[in-house]
Amino acid sequence: MSIQFQVEAQIGSARAGRLLTPHGEVETPVFMPVGTLASVKGVPQDILEELGVQILLGNTYHLYFRPGVEQVRKLGGLHRFMAWPRAILTDSGGFQVFSLTDLRKVAEEGVTFRSHLDGSSHFFSPESAMEAQIGLGADIIMAFDECTEYPADRERVRASMELTLRWAERSKRHFEEHKDEVPWAKNHVAPDASPGGHAKLAGADEHDRSYAGEDARATHEAAELCSARQPRAAVSTCSPATQALFGIVQGGMDHQLRKESAERTIEIGFPGYAIGGLSVGEPRELTREIVESTLEHLPAEQPRYLMGVGTPEEIVEYANLGFDMMDCVLPTRAARHGLLFTSEGKISIKQARYAGDAAPLDPNCGCRVCQRYSRAYLRHLYASNEALAQVLNTVHNLSFYLDTMRAVRHSILLGKETGSSCVRSRPKP
Amino acid sequence: MSIQFQVEAQIGSARAGRLLTPHGEVETPVFMPVGTLASVKGVPQDILEELGVQILLGNTYHLYFRPGVEQVRKLGGLHRFMAWPRAILTDSGGFQVFSLTDLRKVAEEGVTFRSHLDGSSHFFSPESAMEAQIGLGADIIMAFDECTEYPADRERVRASMELTLRWAERSKRHFEEHKDEVPWAKNHVAPDASPGGHAKLAGADEHDRSYAGEDARATHEAAELCSARQPRAAVSTCSPATQALFGIVQGGMDHQLRKESAERTIEIGFPGYAIGGLSVGEPRELTREIVESTLEHLPAEQPRYLMGVGTPEEIVEYANLGFDMMDCVLPTRAARHGLLFTSEGKISIKQARYAGDAAPLDPNCGCRVCQRYSRAYLRHLYASNEALAQVLNTVHNLSFYLDTMRAVRHSILLGKETGSSCVRSRPKP
Repeated sequence: MSIQFQVEAQIGSARAGRLLTPHGEVETPVFMPVGTLASVKGVPQDILEELGVQILLGNTYHLYFRPGVEQVRKLGGLHRFMAWPRAILTDSGGFQVFSLTDLRKVAEEGVTFRSHLDGSSHFFSPESAMEAQIGLGADIIMAFDECTEYPADRERVRASMELTLRWAERSKRHFEEHKDEVPWAKNHVAPDASPGGHAKLAGADEHDRSYAGEDARATHEAAELCSARQPRAAVSTCSPATQALFGIVQGGMDHQLRKESAERTIEIGFPGYAIGGLSVGEPRELTREIVESTLEHLPAEQPRYLMGVGTPEEIVEYANLGFDMMDCVLPTRAARHGLLFTSEGKISIKQARYAGDAAPLDPNCGCRVCQRYSRAYLRHLYASNEALAQVLNTVHNLSFYLDTMRAVRHSILLGKETGSSCVRSRPKP
Repeated sequence: MSIQFQVEAQIGSARAGRLLTPHGEVETPVFMPVGTLASVKGVPQDILEELGVQILLGNTYHLYFRPGVEQVRKLGGLHRFMAWPRAILTDSGGFQVFSLTDLRKVAEEGVTFRSHLDGSSHFFSPESAMEAQIGLGADIIMAFDECTEYPADRERVRASMELTLRWAERSKRHFEEHKDEVPWAKNHVAPDASPGGHAKLAGADEHDRSYAGEDARATHEAAELCSARQPRAAVSTCSPATQALFGIVQGGMDHQLRKESAERTIEIGFPGYAIGGLSVGEPRELTREIVESTLEHLPAEQPRYLMGVGTPEEIVEYANLGFDMMDCVLPTRAARHGLLFTSEGKISIKQARYAGDAAPLDPNCGCRVCQRYSRAYLRHLYASNEALAQVLNTVHNLSFYLDTMRAVRHSILLGKETGSSCVRSRPKP
């Protein structure tokens, strides 16, 4: 068992579902905050839990350098390393390598690139990207792909897409051969082997952590749901938890190539599919067109993940189109620049107009920041370069994104239309 | 009523007491974390509450520049501005100005100095320092003093001490004339005027904050204790809450001048006394000698505050000598440099030896950091320059300091010896 996905309700093309992972359940559609270096910059894990984050994204490229895959693996994998008992997804490193335009060289075998930290030379291939992601041990990992640059002519896009398809096959082959090497899999126990309920997790646990209990609980629940889908007597046939490898559809800005990429990726066969290679400089309208036309070629019964999207309006829009998973650095990165999302539009908290504003950041927000602090205080923290500014701004922006997605999900479950007018993400004109 | 202080237990010269302020009770001896710019760098206020912080220190010099006293005053004072319902103490700015060695000029009237931010010229006098501190509205404020440099000859120390004494008189005179101008005093209501219980606080509260309730509760409790000390029928005679102005003893490293400074400061009359002008470069042994000889001249029935001290060992030592209040930037500043205090000694978390260390930072610590994260993770955050490093390191160091002081207090209440061997602050040899 790796993941299980069930659609609970549908309205138009939008759907609400549940994604069961080895580290707990994820209610979809879901926004996944980005925790690049095993941390959502500035926010303690217990606050992320309180915000209702069910799945985090980690960046393989960055973790490969710091602290290093082997270090994380020896410490039991990312969950244990960063004390995060809930689900994690890692990207393959392909997109980060792609963004090192002048520092990379792509060949059939893989990509040679220079570190953004010290210029040292490194090599990623489908096999090494799988090895890294298995060592990190996220619940969902991504095939190694080439993100096609924009603009690119049709021949270049086709060649790139073909390369990604060959890499997808190699990714899957390597993953299937090595998926049992995930740090937390080897000690994973099926429910019947652990009558007490709390399975012991893998890793060099020199002391008992309070979160380890939660970790085990999540795994146990996952296993229980697994068993719930089978005859009670057949519990022990439920295989130990492993990671799930998702495929990535490429094909540039060409509808026909996107369709072909989707069909051939599905042919290879993955438990979930992502659309990659967007937001690479193309106009927003084009992004939307490509996303919409590609989506219809993805299987409805499996999770559909739109990578690197987007603004509050976009995540609502794409959830309504039928995507189940999204991630973006926007809420966290904007927070660090004092750009805050509210039900009344965007606020640049650095502006002097907020210096004496005793109102909460967003009067319609129930987050711990809006419940406690004033705009004047947040403005002061930002203007004074206080570390707390980043903490509070990030907590609010994440809260806004998560609330927005929860509102969409809620609307779907209620069978209502979920146009962006239903949720509080309308910017001021 | 400003503050009330009662000694609950005594063992040798050490004592455990309760300091009642307009914003809640403070159990002494107490360590006061430094929140220079209305924030303990990187730590949200609810975490400070969870750590059991009962009183915070703010720096008048820094707040005078950012966000400015008038801004804070208009927003209802520091408590409301920073959403901190518990007690606050502000220093007078004297020490900060003193540390601007090349940028200040001291005269009878006051000190002319240049801003560390933009070099602009400013002037602090006893009167303006009181005005600033009344506008900020801390529960306890400090007389404006001259911190004598070290080394200094006897004549220089005497002249400086005399100046501080004249400034103490002027501080007190100005405070007495203007103490009713504190932002939260004017709307303060005695219990009988607010039968519902929750007094409404002053300030431009454009919306109800959840903490405002707590704020009011604290004030209400303070007023109730006030009333509890008087016949029930006389509740309304209990005067509205005001700030408390503490005097500061100077006198350099001269025992005789310290004695004289103490006696003449006491003659002026304050509800509490601080020892200032230490840790200015003198040897630690000399600090201890001066502290000890000065302490015996301070009244036993009033709170005694040792400013700017110190290491975990020192706060234990000075609490055992009989001090009730201490503050220091050490736990918070050291945290930002990756220097962490533990029951097993100091740890420099940046060291490579912790990269694979799955143990908690301090196996004997119950703080949320030690309960959840490993040394390996903390080391990774620090080495990767992640913002969460500062947050978690600061939370742990503060927890260690607060636990240390609570252990001393507990020992005193139990009537035990409270040598530093009783508390977990012994560094490794």
